[in-house]
Amino acid sequence: MIGVVGSGSWGTALAQVLADNHNDVIIWGRQASEIDDINLKHQNSKYFGDTLINENLKATLNFEDLKECSTILLAVPTGAVESVSLKLNEILVKPTIIINVAKGFHPTTHELLSEVIKRSVDPDKFAGVVSLIGPSHAEEVILRKLTTINAVSDSETLAVLIQNMFSNDYFRVYTNTDIIGSQIGVAIKNIISLASGIAAGLDLGDNARAALITRGLAEMTRYGVYFGGQKETFLGLCGVGDLIVTCTSPHSRNFQAGFEIGKANSAVNYLENLEKTVEGIFATKVVHDVASEEGILMPITEQVYKVVYEGKEPRKAIDDLMKRDLKPENL
Amino acid sequence: MIGVVGSGSWGTALAQVLADNHNDVIIWGRQASEIDDINLKHQNSKYFGDTLINENLKATLNFEDLKECSTILLAVPTGAVESVSLKLNEILVKPTIIINVAKGFHPTTHELLSEVIKRSVDPDKFAGVVSLIGPSHAEEVILRKLTTINAVSDSETLAVLIQNMFSNDYFRVYTNTDIIGSQIGVAIKNIISLASGIAAGLDLGDNARAALITRGLAEMTRYGVYFGGQKETFLGLCGVGDLIVTCTSPHSRNFQAGFEIGKANSAVNYLENLEKTVEGIFATKVVHDVASEEGILMPITEQVYKVVYEGKEPRKAIDDLMKRDLKPENL
Repeated sequence: MIGVVGSGSWGTALAQVLADNHNDVIIWGRQASEIDDINLKHQNSKYFGDTLINENLKATLNFEDLKECSTILLAVPTGAVESVSLKLNEILVKPTIIINVAKGFHPTTHELLSEVIKRSVDPDKFAGVVSLIGPSHAEEVILRKLTTINAVSDSETLAVLIQNMFSNDYFRVYTNTDIIGSQIGVAIKNIISLASGIAAGLDLGDNARAALITRGLAEMTRYGVYFGGQKETFLGLCGVGDLIVTCTSPHSRNFQAGFEIGKANSAVNYLENLEKTVEGIFATKVVHDVASEEGILMPITEQVYKVVYEGKEPRKAIDDLMKRDLKPENL
Repeated sequence: MIGVVGSGSWGTALAQVLADNHNDVIIWGRQASEIDDINLKHQNSKYFGDTLINENLKATLNFEDLKECSTILLAVPTGAVESVSLKLNEILVKPTIIINVAKGFHPTTHELLSEVIKRSVDPDKFAGVVSLIGPSHAEEVILRKLTTINAVSDSETLAVLIQNMFSNDYFRVYTNTDIIGSQIGVAIKNIISLASGIAAGLDLGDNARAALITRGLAEMTRYGVYFGGQKETFLGLCGVGDLIVTCTSPHSRNFQAGFEIGKANSAVNYLENLEKTVEGIFATKVVHDVASEEGILMPITEQVYKVVYEGKEPRKAIDDLMKRDLKPENL
């Protein structure tokens, strides 16, 4: 049996992929209303309205129900990956494959999420970790729209196993062993997405957005290569692929957040009323702090940081970013 | 004086940039209605509705008026670059800088457009050629929205000269000397844009579009590097930058063409009623033919070719493209 931790949109959509592939799947969640919705009405209306989901999907409120799963998929926010992994460590009874789908860094140690999971689960309960990441909005996967994604692990065998577990006609899984580059790419793209949203909120237009995304790709590549990621990874699904979908799709929460901030020309009100998890806001702090310490040039991240954490006016931030001295194209 | 050949949307928008920078500019066009519109009403309503343009812009129907220009900007379709260059060669009286903004290849010789211009204008009338290319929709430039673009020339001096001529607060020009990579990038992106439009017309969604653009970037890079372009160019404004804006903006004519073809699930009707120049349709033939001859793997171009030139059903083409055997991420 495969367990899915988290009954949100992405957990539900990926659980359905697994159920469509004839796996036994159980979703664990904390909201009784969502669990009942899945079990009794075969829907998760909080996220997907009246869309009917695979009838074989089961959900539970009891975390203990996951203990004998051979594979566990973590579909929780970045900030919860450590606590959930520790909680899993208490109940698991055998070596288990952990799949992570969150995109970010540990908020204080700055570790990659695969590292957080690896150190949180004891060796006798741990069969390896795979990141399932790439350009993929849950709203489309639940409708079984064509999606491509990467299974990323330092173990190629494990990556291929997860590839086979998830792949079907509409969900195309590739494998990649660059765990550093892939995880950095999908985390930093949320920062660029905030910036792209800010630009859209300021009504800057498609030309400026394309320029911003182009520079964002250069910036995330620089950061990833510095930490040992492979340059080619940033040209793939976890680099430019995820960057594009996040910076141009209305489904993206980070883009929406940036849009609101840009429209108001201030982040203050938005942050005060923030209820959802906007991963890019956390990633901005981590990447800004690390880049400052290591001396890595991250101009977009720096301006987003100033807007979000220091109250800088978004219009001024974009001006400072885009209207620098002219020179040869700097890649 | 600077002459602009072509009173279409891009010629008018770039002429306005030059006029905003206090240059004397004259636009040559063949349509009396457009010329009168510019001279008398300070607008080009065919393309920009009632948007008022710089009052200092002048337009003419007389090609001879361009003969003493120190710089000529060609804003004509790819297929007209050769004939217009030959026509210029007949009237020019001194060495003139030619700026090209068309994106494509010579339809039969397959040359880069800078090469076509260079061989069409006699040495005593030719002071060099610069391509002004990058992510830039005329509809936004005319409104003076922030835009970044490359001035590309094998002469860095010339590129800097054009950079200074065009740059201002809203129009940011960078320089690049990779004339092969840059021109190949902006030409092939029109093919990927057709594919992206086809996918959108088939209602495939943002996840699939991001995957397609990602593969498109790999494909155009492969082709460009084969012919001596620099890999880095494809990570810049003439690569991923122009690709993104063309594949995601409703302003893109190639995307729109693809969308209509996808929606109808056939190219036949669309092509029979085609009145506008859709550059990607011509580029598809050139790149397909060259790639076949040279043995360069271009799967997206191949499927677009089959849809446009061999009547293949778009849905089948996308299926053949996206649902290949699964493997490691192939970059």
